[in-house]
Order: sequence, then structure tokens, then C-alpha cells
Amino acid sequence: MSPGNPELVNALVQVLGSENVLTALEDILPYGFDGTATFKQRPVAVVFAHDAAQVSAVIKLARTHRAPVVTRGSGTGLSGGSVPVPGAVVLCLVKMDRILEVDPANLTLRAEAGAITQKIFDAADATGLFYPPDPGSMKISTIGGNVAENSGGLRGLKYGVTRDYVMGLEVVLADGSICWLGSKCVKDVAGYNLRDLFIGSEGTLGVVTQVLLKLLPKPAARQTLLATYARMDSAAETVSAIIAAKIIPCTLEFLDRKTIQCVEDFAKVGLPRDAEAILLIETDGHPAAVADEAAKIEELCRAHGATSVRRAATAAEAAQLATARRSAFSALARLRPTTILEDVTVPRSELAGMIREVEAIATRHQLNIATFGHFGDGNLHPTILTDERDTAEMHRVELAFADIVQATLARGGTITGEHGVGLAKKPFLKSQLGDASYELLRLVKRSLDPDGLLNPGKIFDQS
Amino acid sequence: MSPGNPELVNALVQVLGSENVLTALEDILPYGFDGTATFKQRPVAVVFAHDAAQVSAVIKLARTHRAPVVTRGSGTGLSGGSVPVPGAVVLCLVKMDRILEVDPANLTLRAEAGAITQKIFDAADATGLFYPPDPGSMKISTIGGNVAENSGGLRGLKYGVTRDYVMGLEVVLADGSICWLGSKCVKDVAGYNLRDLFIGSEGTLGVVTQVLLKLLPKPAARQTLLATYARMDSAAETVSAIIAAKIIPCTLEFLDRKTIQCVEDFAKVGLPRDAEAILLIETDGHPAAVADEAAKIEELCRAHGATSVRRAATAAEAAQLATARRSAFSALARLRPTTILEDVTVPRSELAGMIREVEAIATRHQLNIATFGHFGDGNLHPTILTDERDTAEMHRVELAFADIVQATLARGGTITGEHGVGLAKKPFLKSQLGDASYELLRLVKRSLDPDGLLNPGKIFDQS
Repeated sequence: MSPGNPELVNALVQVLGSENVLTALEDILPYGFDGTATFKQRPVAVVFAHDAAQVSAVIKLARTHRAPVVTRGSGTGLSGGSVPVPGAVVLCLVKMDRILEVDPANLTLRAEAGAITQKIFDAADATGLFYPPDPGSMKISTIGGNVAENSGGLRGLKYGVTRDYVMGLEVVLADGSICWLGSKCVKDVAGYNLRDLFIGSEGTLGVVTQVLLKLLPKPAARQTLLATYARMDSAAETVSAIIAAKIIPCTLEFLDRKTIQCVEDFAKVGLPRDAEAILLIETDGHPAAVADEAAKIEELCRAHGATSVRRAATAAEAAQLATARRSAFSALARLRPTTILEDVTVPRSELAGMIREVEAIATRHQLNIATFGHFGDGNLHPTILTDERDTAEMHRVELAFADIVQATLARGGTITGEHGVGLAKKPFLKSQLGDASYELLRLVKRSLDPDGLLNPGKIFDQS
Repeated sequence: MSPGNPELVNALVQVLGSENVLTALEDILPYGFDGTATFKQRPVAVVFAHDAAQVSAVIKLARTHRAPVVTRGSGTGLSGGSVPVPGAVVLCLVKMDRILEVDPANLTLRAEAGAITQKIFDAADATGLFYPPDPGSMKISTIGGNVAENSGGLRGLKYGVTRDYVMGLEVVLADGSICWLGSKCVKDVAGYNLRDLFIGSEGTLGVVTQVLLKLLPKPAARQTLLATYARMDSAAETVSAIIAAKIIPCTLEFLDRKTIQCVEDFAKVGLPRDAEAILLIETDGHPAAVADEAAKIEELCRAHGATSVRRAATAAEAAQLATARRSAFSALARLRPTTILEDVTVPRSELAGMIREVEAIATRHQLNIATFGHFGDGNLHPTILTDERDTAEMHRVELAFADIVQATLARGGTITGEHGVGLAKKPFLKSQLGDASYELLRLVKRSLDPDGLLNPGKIFDQS
């Protein structure tokens, strides 16, 4: 179709009303990118749906007019998953933002896909329940986006990721049909698990319109610790020692020296600027278990060379310590015009070596790379601070990116732990999966979206 | 192909050796059924593979000769999933039974598909780790069978099911290609999650040959309680009260009056024969948490009408109490020639009403139905004690079966919580899923197994 396709736009206006169809340049420009640096593409139109029936109508119209559909929520993604493709209609679900039900007897919460993650957490919290996944962007991200990317967060080690809390999904398929996958039953083996196929499929197989989530009882107690290290290896040894002691903290995060310095400049939390590594550790659960675990963790930190260990005395102090980690990305993003956030993940035992390798890669390509991430999950966020206008440096960025990916795969890791493949990691997927798995993915895409109109060109190229 | 197809058998012998290809009637008869009553079918041959390459060779040969392949482990399934189809080669994986690696640093265990579940539990246990899924047949079931059926167990409420512990799979696809899905990374969003598609797919999409499992630290303490009730409703109210108190026990099982009487006859555990319900409750974790929770649970049991509450003083006594529940199926199976085990599951809040409805259905159809199951999961095992030679009674069994399924679906439940669809639940799947989801399942099957040779006719009919 030609850009600006007026027939399609008219048909969309008929279904959704003109107030829900944007085509003016100034209106659609903000929907031309997401949280990922360097990817931009103007859509043909941006439309807002209010329920699954409208989503279905949009999908059918787009099919009739052969227009790609790129679904998005708040656009906080970090792999380009919701960046439009040429000729695309952006289907924005932020107006489907209701929390439909909290069911304390069955420990479930049902919400529309556009509901904000933080609101879901708050609604659970208000009934004494707990929705654990806490992606960095949870204050503005939508649950539909979290499901599409299978978002992680800071509590992954103990509580897992978004997938672990999805019991059911309402999905609009490529032919416009609407189906429910999953149920309120905590055990359900009736047929293939297609729910989990849609989780993390980045809008390429269908449009998630409703989500049924599992909740947990709220942990009764929590303790936050911040340990400072003169050597990254000591921090890594501490993490191994904690796991070996059969303790699974809910949070086990780290910052490297560059990130520490940036965060301190930005947030003034009182971090030691000369430390090589900081671990943020949180344990939660029964008060006695938390007290025991926190004491043991502190002991292990000191035994493995921590130069200081701070235990938060109050919730406010805990929040302040957590700020050090939560503000890492924002703090780093202030330093240079372009911030490229990596998301490689290795088996936990490989993490210390991987961090050293990232440092060597930074030196080799003369780049400024700060690294932070989820130590307990082996999930690293090497952050390249650069300037996309500097062609020579961007070329070195590409080389470094490829080197980091290669080092990750050599250690049995994955090119993406929680941000998704999208556009950013597409070139590397085949090397990770191998031919047979890669072709299987493409086969699934062809089968479920034979016309290739649902977020095409993401994850892999279809042709 | 004709039964006994000698060309195919010769080709199989060439690849596997004659000691791994059974065709004599007395050898193959034991592979003509599984743990499910009433389903039997003699295969053409039974073959044993020793690695993925041999599995791949078998798949390719079967494809050349257009023979269906039915994969099985120990054949303990309860929905007919591993019962041969006409003309089938049974591919038995019990000789692929090695535990390949226990990795304490990454909390993983890798095993071949034919490894016995109990051995996996023991290997984890030996290093202080814990593999939670404990299907009833775990002493003889294989991990490959557990994955194929996504088996549950007695710890589902707190720990989930097999799926929740599978990090990676080696799978041989319908074209014979071998692929790995998943990794040792605790977070991995590189491409579609096809691992979870194969889990619970009952051998209809590929053959799982290796499994990478997630382990947990072993809980430090455990407390087992047995509460007796004069009324089933009181037991149900207790369960709701426990959940409302934000306690998630690892085990929350129940027996009804008929099951209690049978178990007492069989195992002599000292159960009160006049009780209408018994709850077996187990909590585990930090010793202080366990002590608090056990005290609170006992208080809630008594407050909601328990006539007695027994707390196990020792591990031996705990094991004895658990015997009451673990022996339920064996005890019931002694009463009549044919034991038909149902597996319906409803949202937890619907369970008490569902149990009453099953009792009404038994009365209406003049059948002997004893019920036990996983109260915390809403997973019921109404067990019809009958005789397959009695045509008139078997007709009433069919009617009762259909009534139970209908009642389940009316309560938002599922036709199978942990046993799978196989042959037994095939007629009911479409009513549960609805047309759109059902057709999506069939589409996935057609795409991944275009010749329809992998365990055909299970879950649904393909034509």
C-alpha cells in the first residue's frame, strides 16, 4: 500500500471514530520510535482500540488493505519491538487500561492489555497480594507490552519473570478471530500450551488484549543490603557463596565502577566513588527467615571481601539503596547523546568472566561501556555511551556489540535476557538458536500469520 | 503400511540392532496400553533408542515408510497418551536414562528423557537441592513422560508443575532434525518460546530426548498435618481460610469418605472411617516460618470445624500421614476390576461445589465414585469404580463422565489438570477451548507434523 492510504484510513475512522485515528504528522511522530536508540520509522496511521472486537476489526481491515499492524502500549521497549515498519498502522492499546477483576480467593487479577504495570502491582497490593514482576519501566509500561516482551525486572532470581505470572490471555489472531488461552485453574493441560507461545512473541503472532495474572501473598518482611567491593571478582564470589548457602534472594543486582560514579553524580545516594562493584541484595519472606538470611548474606559479603555492608534500617532507607540501582539507566543516559543498552545473559556461573570480557571489549574498541544488571540472573546490561551522529564511533559500537554477543554465546548465554529480539538483536538470533530451531520459529510465524502482517520483520526476516 | 511391515522392521534393525527391535507378540503386548483403563492397541514393533541420533533415524525411517511413531517411557500415563495407534512403531526411551549433569552453581540438572523421576529427585537431593514435581508414579515414570504430559503432583500449590522446572529441551522434530530449545540462562527471551509448546504436547509435535531442569535449594524444615472433618464443606472453608491468611502450603490434599474407607482398609493408617473428608496439609521452608504456618493452619482447621488435627511429630509419622493420600489410587483400584480416574480441575473457589456435584452425579447414574485430589489446586480425581465387561454400567459411566466434564466447564474449569488429553479427554477438548483456540491447536499440529505421523489421533483428530 502507498503511505497515507486513504481508503484504509477512512475504513479505520468508520470503525473507531475519527478521535481514535491519528494521521497528522505531529500526532504520529511520537509513535515512530520506542525506548531503543537509533530505530525510527513513521507509521501511516496510529489507531486506538477500546476492546478486543475493535482490535479484531482493525486486524481485518489491515488484512484487506495488506497493511502491516504494529501493536504497542507505552513504547518503553528496548529492542525496537514496537517501532513501526514501513506502511504500518500502529495499533495502540493504552486506552484499554482497565483492571477488570481482583480475585483473592483464586489469587488472580484480570486486566486489559493497556493497563499500566504499576497499577496492577498497586491493585494487588491493596488486597494484601503481590504481583512480583517489576520491569524498570513499570511506572509507565503496559502489561500487554510486558507480556509481548516477557519482561523481567529486579526480582527475577526468586520470583521469575512476567511469563511466570500469566495464567491466561485473550488474543486476537491474524485472521481477526478472538480466543482465550489458559484459565483460572492453577493446573491445566488441556491441549497445547499456546499461551506461552504468545508470551514473548513481540506482537508477531497475534495481539494480546486481556491478561489473567497470578498473584502471591505479600511477603511479610523484607531486608535490603548494599555491599561495596574493591574488586568485581569478590562480588562474583559473594554471589556464588550466597547460592551455595541455599539462599535465593529476591534481588541480587550489581553496578560496576562507571555506573557507580554516574549514579552518584545523578542521585547522590552516598555511594563510594572508588568502589569497583556494588551489590544490591534484597531478601523477603517470613520475618525470621529474612533476619537469618540477611545475617548470613552480610557474613558472606564480608567473608568474600566486601569493604562495607550497609543494611537498610527502615523502608525509606531500603528505597534509597534501591534507587542506586533503579536510577542506573537514567543516570548513564545523561552522559552522552546516545545510550545503547545491551541485555546479554549468561549462566550465573559465567557472569564474572563475562563482565571482565565486556571491559576488555570496551578497551579494544575505545568505547565507554558502563555495566550493571541482574547478577543473580546472569543478566548483564552493558551500556554503551555514544553519539549516533559520530559515524566512526558508531562503527566501533557495532563491532563491540557483535563481540559482546559472540562472547555471550561462547559461554552458553543468550543474546537477550529480558528486552526481546525486536530489531536490535535480529542479526544474532540464528547464531544462538542454530538452524533447526531458527527454522522452526519461522515455520510457526508462517503458520500463524500467513500474510506476514503482524509486526513483520521483527525477531527475524520472513523471506 | 500393513501390520508387521517387514521392510520397515529390517531398516529399524539395521539402525538399532536386533536386540532393540521387538516384534514378537509376547514382547510387544506390554507396550499396547498405558495406565489408562479401556484403551489397548497392539503396535507393529517396539524399538529402543539410545540417543537423539537414533531417535532421529527412527523418525526418518518411519516417515519413509509412512508409519506413525508413538513415543513412550514407562507407560504410566492416565489419559491414553502413549497407547499405540494402528500400524504404529512404539519408540521407547527407557534406555536413555542417564542423569548427565548436576550443576549446583547454576541450580540445574540435565538428564536423558528416559531417566526415572525419582532418580532425578534423588540426584538433586544428594547435593542439597530439590526437584519439586512429584507425580504419583514418580518411582517409575520417566522425566520425558512427565514433560510430554506436563505432570503435576502433590506440591503443585506452592511449587507448580513439571513445566515450571523445565529450562531447556532437546527435541527431535518430525523431519528428524534435532534442536535445543532453552538454555541454562534463567532469563532468555531470544525468539518464540517453543520449549513450552513441546511441554505437554504428548508426543504429537516432536520427541523430547533430553531435559535441562531447574532445581531449588532444599527447604530446611517441613511440617505435615492431617485434619479430619465431619462435613466436606468445613474442609473447603478451611482451605479458603488458609489462602485468605496468605499461607501457601506446599501440599493441600483431600480424600472423601469413600476414599478414606478404602485407604484405611488397604493401608491401615488409623483414619477415622466415619469422617466425610480428610485434609493432608504440608508446609515447608524456614523452620520459624513452618512453625508459625503450622500453628496457624491448625488453628484455622479447628476454627472451621475439624474434628481432629494430627501434627506429625517425626519424619516417619509425616510419611505415614502422606501414605494415606499417596495410596488412594492403589487402594481404590483393588475394589472393582476397572478403575477410571478423572482429572477435572476448577478454580480453587469452585471446588467444594464441584465435589458436591460429583456426588450428585454418582447418585444419579447409580455409580460408585470415590473422590480425592489436590484441593489447593482445584484438581479433583473422581474415581469411578466399575467393570468394563458390564456394558450397561459402562454406558452409565460414559454419561457420568460427560456430566462431570460439563459441570467442570460450567465452573470455568478444565477437563484435565495434570493427566493430559490423550485419547480419554479428546471428545471434550473442543467444548473447553472454543472453536478459535481449538483450530489454532490443529493448525500448529499440521505445521509441525505435516504428515501427521507423530502420535496421531491424540489430543484431537487431525482430519
